[in-house]
Amino acid sequence: MPEEFKVTPYDVEGKVDYQRLVDKFGISPIDVKLKERIRRLAGEDNYMISRQIFFAQRDLNWLLDEYEKGNKFYIYTGIAPSGNMTLAHLVPFLMAKWLQDKFGAEAYIEIPDEEKYLNKRDPKLTLERTHELAYDDALNIAALGLDPKKTKIFLDTEYAGVLYKQAVRVSKHITFSIIKDAFGYSNETNIGAIFYTSLQAVPAFLKSVEEGRNVPCLIPLGVDQDVHFRVARNAIEKLGYYKPAIMHSKFLPSLKGGPKMSTSDPDNAIYLSDDEETVVKKVNKAITGQQSTAELQKKYGGDPEKCSVCQYYRYIFEPDDSKLEKIFEAERSGTMLAGEHKKDLAQRINRFLAEHRARREKLKDRLDEYMVKG
Amino acid sequence: MPEEFKVTPYDVEGKVDYQRLVDKFGISPIDVKLKERIRRLAGEDNYMISRQIFFAQRDLNWLLDEYEKGNKFYIYTGIAPSGNMTLAHLVPFLMAKWLQDKFGAEAYIEIPDEEKYLNKRDPKLTLERTHELAYDDALNIAALGLDPKKTKIFLDTEYAGVLYKQAVRVSKHITFSIIKDAFGYSNETNIGAIFYTSLQAVPAFLKSVEEGRNVPCLIPLGVDQDVHFRVARNAIEKLGYYKPAIMHSKFLPSLKGGPKMSTSDPDNAIYLSDDEETVVKKVNKAITGQQSTAELQKKYGGDPEKCSVCQYYRYIFEPDDSKLEKIFEAERSGTMLAGEHKKDLAQRINRFLAEHRARREKLKDRLDEYMVKG
Repeated sequence: MPEEFKVTPYDVEGKVDYQRLVDKFGISPIDVKLKERIRRLAGEDNYMISRQIFFAQRDLNWLLDEYEKGNKFYIYTGIAPSGNMTLAHLVPFLMAKWLQDKFGAEAYIEIPDEEKYLNKRDPKLTLERTHELAYDDALNIAALGLDPKKTKIFLDTEYAGVLYKQAVRVSKHITFSIIKDAFGYSNETNIGAIFYTSLQAVPAFLKSVEEGRNVPCLIPLGVDQDVHFRVARNAIEKLGYYKPAIMHSKFLPSLKGGPKMSTSDPDNAIYLSDDEETVVKKVNKAITGQQSTAELQKKYGGDPEKCSVCQYYRYIFEPDDSKLEKIFEAERSGTMLAGEHKKDLAQRINRFLAEHRARREKLKDRLDEYMVKG
Repeated sequence: MPEEFKVTPYDVEGKVDYQRLVDKFGISPIDVKLKERIRRLAGEDNYMISRQIFFAQRDLNWLLDEYEKGNKFYIYTGIAPSGNMTLAHLVPFLMAKWLQDKFGAEAYIEIPDEEKYLNKRDPKLTLERTHELAYDDALNIAALGLDPKKTKIFLDTEYAGVLYKQAVRVSKHITFSIIKDAFGYSNETNIGAIFYTSLQAVPAFLKSVEEGRNVPCLIPLGVDQDVHFRVARNAIEKLGYYKPAIMHSKFLPSLKGGPKMSTSDPDNAIYLSDDEETVVKKVNKAITGQQSTAELQKKYGGDPEKCSVCQYYRYIFEPDDSKLEKIFEAERSGTMLAGEHKKDLAQRINRFLAEHRARREKLKDRLDEYMVKG
């Protein structure tokens, strides 16, 4: 019997079997042919696609058909603020940035500052707090290098003048039965949480509303978010718009094991706000795929698949495939011990974070160039 | 066994027993002492209060206590557009106008242009259509003589930038269980309709949000709307604001009998847009409390309580009590026959509508003075 696991927007538990998710969610793998097609159209390889970090999709071939006909797509992704952003949160935004660069796509970034307020019982997570976090998230996202001329970032509570009317149109086509099953809600769920998915649906067709013609939309997202669009894609189609295409990513593993870089234990995750010392400390505590002693490791070698240090290289810190293979090989063969391994990763993370801080600093008074309100 | 009837925002059926509603809804009558208190503070009598057209209330004594302490209240009411406005819709707005005049109260008027879209199956009732109707409603309301300096009128879809955030706060304290029971919803109800009551709650504390201090609010409404506030008052209190006070009105009877001036049969109601001929025709078809022939009527007289013509005088067209009593007496004694009776009412309605049209005409290019967006 396969191991049990759970993937919802509010809960990821157990060892995630991504192949089973493909069947369960009715999504399609990103296969060799599709990888090759993306590479050809982009003019270069993307390591997150070739390494199956983005492993599944909906309607991506259709989207590329449209692109080849000259019907350009735009990108939509987002993040619900509930705490400081971690490295895990970067994955969809790094993809959005690459898609923007390679396909000239505009990006719509939704920061639903009401979502976790409505879905969590934490009394400290007020709307004032999520608003503050939302602006910090916006700065982190902008600092990844998105083009301000081609990017709109918005908070739900600040853009509701635009979003609410469209959310109402979506909501008319979604019953409580659908939501109850999809999100595991009960009759005791609050009505704001029940309605919320309508807001998350809007940016997937908003550009079509704005332009008065159908514009294809591509959503890179963590696979836990797919459920919102399983529900909304039908509603969006009923309103006469294209259903959005989707690219699904896996979760960056937590440093201490576990399926997702949970924010409940701060040692599980690297926050973008972590200082150098904290990064070194956290990486030192990370789980590796190595044997219990240096001697055994030298003799038998380790397993990069089980090593969170190796996975960090794979997901973010070593885009070069041949260099990544050397790191994995060193782990497998036992030629590089855990301490050395970790020291190198901590250095790379700290270099990234230092650059990120510098980009944040440069952008912090220019964030208005990205934000839209209404 | 008492006759069955039903009063919800989406359905009024049977002969409404207002005394039973008072018990059922847990509201309080507007008694002699309270009538006298309102009269004293306003400096004049209001026929809708003395005649029990506004027959019940919540926390009205508290509101007047605050008023006497110098803590002024504001008024909130509204209308959900689904068709042209009828005379029946005027009752809460006429009260709002009087309260504004006598108590110097500001008025917040919500026009939820999404409500009927979400709650009706009529495919013609698009958001474009309700938007158009909403602006026509706004002009009708302004034309009743509200002071533009003390009145804010807003559509939900155009004011969501302000309303949505506050609605989210309300919604967190309302579960689907509560809504299901209160509105008779099922699992097949759409999630927009389920969320909607959160939006209707907001103007009841919006001024407190704006001013950063608690401001008492008084809501004159048709008694069918009470359910929204039975649900929301608790949520509003949990957010730390005053629960709004409420004044409940009865329904203007339909011309052809029935509890409420339904808009499904156009002959049941006088629309503000009806021309003179149409008014005459509709009033001529109205049910009276008279005997079946002129001879019997002269002999036995009629019953003003069953006479829709008499009730139109009572609710709107004859504010003078002694004149109203003469009309009722003429009906009872049989000295005035149905034809004469109707001719006089049709003339009064047409005089009112002609003046109303003239006020609309004067205001139509100045409606912006009333409207707020955001």
